[in-house]
Amino acid sequence: MPSSKLTGEARLPVSFADVVSAAKRLEGTAHRTPIVTSQTLNGLAGASVFCKCENFQRTGAFKFRGAFNALSQIDARARAQGILAYSSGNHGQAVALAGRLLGIPATVIMPCDAPAVKARATRGYGASIIEYDRSKQSREALAIGISAHRRLAIIPPYDHPHIIAGQGTAALELLQDAGPLDYMLVPCGGGGLLSGSALAVRALAPACQVIGVEPANADDATRSFRTGVLHTTTRPDTIADGARTPSLGKLTFPLVQRLVDDMVTVTEEAILAATRLLWERMKLVVEPTGSLPVAALLGGAFAAPSASIGVILSGGNADLGLWT
Amino acid sequence: MPSSKLTGEARLPVSFADVVSAAKRLEGTAHRTPIVTSQTLNGLAGASVFCKCENFQRTGAFKFRGAFNALSQIDARARAQGILAYSSGNHGQAVALAGRLLGIPATVIMPCDAPAVKARATRGYGASIIEYDRSKQSREALAIGISAHRRLAIIPPYDHPHIIAGQGTAALELLQDAGPLDYMLVPCGGGGLLSGSALAVRALAPACQVIGVEPANADDATRSFRTGVLHTTTRPDTIADGARTPSLGKLTFPLVQRLVDDMVTVTEEAILAATRLLWERMKLVVEPTGSLPVAALLGGAFAAPSASIGVILSGGNADLGLWT
Repeated sequence: MPSSKLTGEARLPVSFADVVSAAKRLEGTAHRTPIVTSQTLNGLAGASVFCKCENFQRTGAFKFRGAFNALSQIDARARAQGILAYSSGNHGQAVALAGRLLGIPATVIMPCDAPAVKARATRGYGASIIEYDRSKQSREALAIGISAHRRLAIIPPYDHPHIIAGQGTAALELLQDAGPLDYMLVPCGGGGLLSGSALAVRALAPACQVIGVEPANADDATRSFRTGVLHTTTRPDTIADGARTPSLGKLTFPLVQRLVDDMVTVTEEAILAATRLLWERMKLVVEPTGSLPVAALLGGAFAAPSASIGVILSGGNADLGLWT
Repeated sequence: MPSSKLTGEARLPVSFADVVSAAKRLEGTAHRTPIVTSQTLNGLAGASVFCKCENFQRTGAFKFRGAFNALSQIDARARAQGILAYSSGNHGQAVALAGRLLGIPATVIMPCDAPAVKARATRGYGASIIEYDRSKQSREALAIGISAHRRLAIIPPYDHPHIIAGQGTAALELLQDAGPLDYMLVPCGGGGLLSGSALAVRALAPACQVIGVEPANADDATRSFRTGVLHTTTRPDTIADGARTPSLGKLTFPLVQRLVDDMVTVTEEAILAATRLLWERMKLVVEPTGSLPVAALLGGAFAAPSASIGVILSGGNADLGLWT
């Protein structure tokens, strides 16, 4: 069944050509991550599942793709002054490493309750960290203040054309390497990965349906998708820290509306069970946000018997204390 | 520097030809596991490290190679009666799955304190489990009693030519896929993997030195190697449960003496630090025994600046409760 979602009706802020350009910029710098399959997972899902292992991406998450794509395109003045990012963790690490590789000083605003492994790695890549309290401060307001004071260019975590185009390269590779897919399941936080993935799928595999997956406890994107009105969540109670973003963005909301076929939500129990299966049976350290698509397959939120399903395991930066 | 260890002086109980035959038997059934590299690991080790990911092998460990090779060669009567294995865990799972694939009923004797994930998986592959208390009973004596009573053929965990030959196929693939290596570091429990690996290295890469790695708290093989007299350990206090075997075997001891270049030992702290690095930075779930070679590289037990070093990450069946 061909997808009902088509591009080309009106000009989008990011195009598939931008994803292809990003792939060229990333070649030789980002890893072309492997696709892993598992008979155990196939048996439980009742389908053929192709896992794109972005947990093996540099900095442990797909975020490196967007960050490097964006940082390679900033102007000379911004390069010299340095850049500023706000992030629950993975975007911060990505900007830190991309900055180091490109010789651009990076400062990262990070919540003080971000997983310790993410903060440690961000410092390790040479970035300065500024901590803030998620329950009291807005990271966007903080970023604007610091950016104005120190004259640093802000690299947003998802709502930027270069970020979205970079994130789309993971789905591009998955389509190139896995063969024909009936569905692609993608974790959704701010919608950067989901938008970029949908751009790649719409261009290369029109019959493949793109499904975004969110925690039920942070279902702002699903509500926005269903109603056509931008919904937000405040301090959502989910273990999937990459999906705690308050809402889709000005760019990602229309892209998700136009290009994505459906959104599904999963319980916290399903997220933990999926993460556990990936660790215990597939020996893959995947963070809870990265396990969202597998949670949808195992927890009953999404079923497509005998289908070929691509899933993006978006990252692996979980604290080992997850299981205590 | 060419290795000082050479084959051919006297007939060995297992040959490289047996490893090649095992590889043919395993083709299409065992996974050809990937080789993973990491800039972080290379930086810390000061060398180029090629990790053979046997944690991604079927049943989560290299043990499937030896078990399938052995079970494919047992006679018709033993096939019908069923087989019996004793195992700290991974050999049990391996025999269970190999038995299911070949239609041979399997019974596994397993210590009651084996990691829960291993016992769960062994049952999942369809084997019957008999538990025993490591501190009170000898699994070998228990196995002989049950074997006699139920007329089951015993498939030993390491001291058997077919097991040793099967285990050697992991090193064979590592040599074929990684390019020239100066060293190969291999975890050592009962010496099946180490003996099989050494057979492959001696035949294919005479200049490559084979180094066995043991926990300092279970250093029986190292003492045996150094003194030429078989040493044993009793209830060793190590987190590396795959290396708690009391001693090398009648076959593996002479093979290790003849074919292995050196043995090194690592502390419990180094084992945990290596396991943590593999999980946190490389996103690979590797069990403590599988981390022994990386522990040797990071903890200072073994150093070879700028060398090309193959390491066998022998398995990934760790309880997630490891970090509590």
